[in-house]
Amino acid sequence: MIDLERFKAARARVKNIVVKTELSFAPKLSEISGYNVYLKKENLQKTGAYKLRGAFNRIAELSDAKRSLGVISASAGNHAQGVAYSAKHFGIRSVIVMPEATPLLKVVSTKSLGAEVILAGENYDEAYRYAKELSKIEKLEYIHPFADDDVIIGQGTIALEMIEEESLDYVLVPVGGGGLISGISSAYKNISPNTKIIGVVAQGACAMYHSFKSKKVCNSKYVKTIADGIAVRDVNEKNLNLILECVDDIVMVDDEEIANAVLFLLEKQKLVVEGAGAVGVAAILHEKINIPKNKNVGIILSGGNIDVTMLSLIIEKGLIKSYRKMQFKTILIDKPGSLQRLTDILCKVGANIIKVDYNRISTTLDYGDAIISMALETKGLEHQNEIRNKLSEAGYKIDEFY
Amino acid sequence: MIDLERFKAARARVKNIVVKTELSFAPKLSEISGYNVYLKKENLQKTGAYKLRGAFNRIAELSDAKRSLGVISASAGNHAQGVAYSAKHFGIRSVIVMPEATPLLKVVSTKSLGAEVILAGENYDEAYRYAKELSKIEKLEYIHPFADDDVIIGQGTIALEMIEEESLDYVLVPVGGGGLISGISSAYKNISPNTKIIGVVAQGACAMYHSFKSKKVCNSKYVKTIADGIAVRDVNEKNLNLILECVDDIVMVDDEEIANAVLFLLEKQKLVVEGAGAVGVAAILHEKINIPKNKNVGIILSGGNIDVTMLSLIIEKGLIKSYRKMQFKTILIDKPGSLQRLTDILCKVGANIIKVDYNRISTTLDYGDAIISMALETKGLEHQNEIRNKLSEAGYKIDEFY
Repeated sequence: MIDLERFKAARARVKNIVVKTELSFAPKLSEISGYNVYLKKENLQKTGAYKLRGAFNRIAELSDAKRSLGVISASAGNHAQGVAYSAKHFGIRSVIVMPEATPLLKVVSTKSLGAEVILAGENYDEAYRYAKELSKIEKLEYIHPFADDDVIIGQGTIALEMIEEESLDYVLVPVGGGGLISGISSAYKNISPNTKIIGVVAQGACAMYHSFKSKKVCNSKYVKTIADGIAVRDVNEKNLNLILECVDDIVMVDDEEIANAVLFLLEKQKLVVEGAGAVGVAAILHEKINIPKNKNVGIILSGGNIDVTMLSLIIEKGLIKSYRKMQFKTILIDKPGSLQRLTDILCKVGANIIKVDYNRISTTLDYGDAIISMALETKGLEHQNEIRNKLSEAGYKIDEFY
Repeated sequence: MIDLERFKAARARVKNIVVKTELSFAPKLSEISGYNVYLKKENLQKTGAYKLRGAFNRIAELSDAKRSLGVISASAGNHAQGVAYSAKHFGIRSVIVMPEATPLLKVVSTKSLGAEVILAGENYDEAYRYAKELSKIEKLEYIHPFADDDVIIGQGTIALEMIEEESLDYVLVPVGGGGLISGISSAYKNISPNTKIIGVVAQGACAMYHSFKSKKVCNSKYVKTIADGIAVRDVNEKNLNLILECVDDIVMVDDEEIANAVLFLLEKQKLVVEGAGAVGVAAILHEKINIPKNKNVGIILSGGNIDVTMLSLIIEKGLIKSYRKMQFKTILIDKPGSLQRLTDILCKVGANIIKVDYNRISTTLDYGDAIISMALETKGLEHQNEIRNKLSEAGYKIDEFY
């Protein structure tokens, strides 16, 4: 276990750099779950994620001589921005190596924080190897995203802020490489050992889950999840050992559950949270944890850097799942007035048509018939059932699709 | 001007009911504008908007006897939820009258706070008249959304919280009926008279703008804006008089500018803000106000209750405006291999195809040709230009559309 004094020192170090983000009661999540749920909003942190804490603490702990030479890391995500921001603060050089296929937006946002960005390698592992090489050649300090004491301690400053504000029985923490939960669980076990720390991994990147359960390093062959911030393939022994010592349990959520949580946070909490940041809420919404009712449960919303294209996809799918959009095909007689008759019914029942497609040359059709596909904006399940009934009463057979 | 003591009493009254929302420095907005911008996050308020403050203060100020009979209001928006939440707190009856066409979601969310919801009237004015009638018949106290001293004073408690935290030179406030700005400007002129208060209206609902400029009540014939929270048609004399006394200027933003601000807040600040809540940020982004650089500027984000369907539309349009999506048509020879040749070029230049449409029976086409329409995910303007060049080099004439 890492010594408490090191966390306190880190807290003092990052205090004027990071935002002390809100830890606030979430009435709707509490009502749904039966717990008293508190959200720690690291998505509102500078650079949009907690990663700044660890990167800053690590760089601050370097000797002046070493730091002045500059730092390097491999990352296409939140860690890159944390390193770049911190390096800028100290007025030193920072180099970030990203895989060649990294979206331009991530390159631009890291560059805008003053980093030199190098695109190298087909995937993260190749970028990592390139960065390690370069760190030797150019004498740049390599800043690991999670397998490093000073990084872990920096992330753990979140726990100190939370302990000051609320007495929590449980804390749910997103887990990828495990840097965040290593820090948070170590700090809690020092100060508030009765608080249970539960990790949440994405099913598509579950190396730490299996490593924790089997108490030895198990790596994944590949990762695939919308929670890109925790899509880590290989488990590091340093993190695993801390986690085995200080973490009470680890649970899993899948992409569908994560998407639901992102949408819930957007609609009900008015917060933009990325997939990795929403896994704790996903675990609550989908009852992945077995906690007695009325307990105080803290959830770390670790970051908010989700691509708006992904957000738009999650919303679109969510509209269908929550009965606010329906799509169907039906067969019309291919003559004037047919479409009018159908739209008349839809108008009367208050459904808003948002898409129409018309096909009369499908081989499955009789001559003189046409297939029409429609997407409707609807008001809920009851409304959809009303639409189904009215269409059925008028003789339409509809074939719904998603 | 309303007496300061009344604001202080209201502050004490709402203190344990409303959240003291964060007022926080916004680095990106500050960098873009050259001001020191602070955001007051009333979108994170309970019920998702500041309206709770005024409704609660108004209902708290009723005599026990009067309050126990219950309250009524006409509203399909944030005021409805503020009234319902407050009535629930006092354990009294609340009736909300909404126009018949109100989306089911708004009905449900108001009902879930314990209100009786009545659907009446074709528009807000008819719902309002119905509610006023009913208030007499059933002896329910009518809670006006903005033209009421206790409501105005309740909204003004926002100013007291802000003054405690930051010394601001300017405060930008969304304006519809003017309840919020009446309260905020009165409080500021009492405590910090040098702070300039600037109202921001939506161009599609600009009655208060014209009333302010001409110093007399000017109503609108109709309103049309995505900022539904401030889509108020008629100006009330009470609010206008307070505004003429305490507000320094009013500016206007249009729907396009509001949509840009909503997207900016979503992407850069990780906050969900409704159209009405984003007008202040729109005014800054689109340089509607003439403020000396380096001044401290506060912006009220008044609410976050935006429909996700609208959010999705704003994102989609935003992707095109920010060069992350492009759509074009081009003509192909209708034979095997034609599409492969085109997709090969797009693949090599790293464009992600997200939609394809194929038409070979347009009357504008030569026999043997086909029109293909495509939507691409792109990485920015530079990437789009690269795509245009490669297609042009390969002999394709593309016709872009939006």
